[in-house]
Amino acid sequence: MLTNPNSDRVRSVRGLAQRPVRRRTGRFLVEGPQGVREAVRYAADRVVDIYLTPEAAARYAADIVDPARAAGLWLHEATPEVLAAMADTDAPQGVLAVVETHHGSLVEVLTARPSLLVFLTHVRDPGNAGTVIRGADAAGADAVLVSSSSVDIHAPKVVRSTAGSLFHLPIVTGLDVEATLTTLAAHGIRTLAADGAGTTLLPDADLTTAHCWVMGNEAWGLPQGIRARCDDVVRVPIRGKAESLNLAMAATVCLYASAGVVRFS
Amino acid sequence: MLTNPNSDRVRSVRGLAQRPVRRRTGRFLVEGPQGVREAVRYAADRVVDIYLTPEAAARYAADIVDPARAAGLWLHEATPEVLAAMADTDAPQGVLAVVETHHGSLVEVLTARPSLLVFLTHVRDPGNAGTVIRGADAAGADAVLVSSSSVDIHAPKVVRSTAGSLFHLPIVTGLDVEATLTTLAAHGIRTLAADGAGTTLLPDADLTTAHCWVMGNEAWGLPQGIRARCDDVVRVPIRGKAESLNLAMAATVCLYASAGVVRFS
Repeated sequence: MLTNPNSDRVRSVRGLAQRPVRRRTGRFLVEGPQGVREAVRYAADRVVDIYLTPEAAARYAADIVDPARAAGLWLHEATPEVLAAMADTDAPQGVLAVVETHHGSLVEVLTARPSLLVFLTHVRDPGNAGTVIRGADAAGADAVLVSSSSVDIHAPKVVRSTAGSLFHLPIVTGLDVEATLTTLAAHGIRTLAADGAGTTLLPDADLTTAHCWVMGNEAWGLPQGIRARCDDVVRVPIRGKAESLNLAMAATVCLYASAGVVRFS
Repeated sequence: MLTNPNSDRVRSVRGLAQRPVRRRTGRFLVEGPQGVREAVRYAADRVVDIYLTPEAAARYAADIVDPARAAGLWLHEATPEVLAAMADTDAPQGVLAVVETHHGSLVEVLTARPSLLVFLTHVRDPGNAGTVIRGADAAGADAVLVSSSSVDIHAPKVVRSTAGSLFHLPIVTGLDVEATLTTLAAHGIRTLAADGAGTTLLPDADLTTAHCWVMGNEAWGLPQGIRARCDDVVRVPIRGKAESLNLAMAATVCLYASAGVVRFS
């Protein structure tokens, strides 16, 4: 049982909240039962350590402890104080894991002949990035692409917002925007810029062939140069007096329109 | 020019971040240019005071200062330190307003023969509540209904998340869930519980007549008793490995599905 919240081990886990430490160690923090359970289920080979309070170990025996043991993973019991000292959030619900970072490859994604992708070109808000990853998973997207100028998807707040979806579909990071648009075009994937400046309304967009939603920055959208490089610029219709949807909502509506769920007539 | 961040005025504005103070004074805080601009545009008769830094006054002359002057509103210049001391957020972008709270009435909403409503029955997260209000506005809903057990929609974080939509459509608060469901039924408005336990998939839901989306709690959804009271229980299809969408995204997808088929007049 780990009892010392000031130990070197605790400090090294806690350090993973910082990007330079993640980069140096190639590891990140997964907090809370949902994320840890999905990590064990879908990325067991990357799980380095799991920390639980005795209470959490009992509560999540079937969900986390048993499958983790079956996969030969390291489980450590720790006091609530130790968990709190390790965590970035106030309430990790008694469980967290250290997991090796993973960056999918664009080549692999394209080789699988995807029909639905989303590309975050300059998304800075961790909650938005995580929520788009969760929405992409739910809508059945094949992968999420992330530019080098976007937020680090292994930051604690992004990981929490994905609610485990980080382990469900390939996520390719560190991409150059222009080069990626060129590559997508070369593979016959239509690029649809989602932007309030679009002239094509979402109900009129051609979503029948393989395509990639291109999302810009929360505040200023997509630069004109990027919009011009896309095959179409599509606007989610706004019916009331709202100026716009937030980025995660717009992305989710677009992805669900692609999935055929949001039908417009 | 207000220069003293410790003045009584500053303290009384700052106090509006607290619910008991809002309840006692009937006023709340609107932070940032977007919210203040929409308050001036759509609820000028409820705007008590506007505070701006000289820089913000210059930047938002056309958007805020001129229309506020034309409406005869009180504008106060203040130092950035005073603005920071008044605000709940770290960065109110140099402008905030004190506005009288307003609680729409269900009778008024129903008299206008609404075709699309959303009812938050036990939503506790401020960001979720604000985002649903913004999504309802964007999808062209006629009003948002909020139960007494939900978060206070005049809390600073809710207000910020609405991005001004708080002033765009009627919001009825303090509702009893069971009584409201009965009233909606009596007015011929179908109630659709949005819940992962639903057997009707969203694409198959009947969205052709007036209806109200009923949203439950973030963590545990809708109680069985409430689901049973609704005309249908509808599930947003989940195609990937995700367990669910977050509440704001699910509500937005449902509302946009409704917007595709319901006629608005």
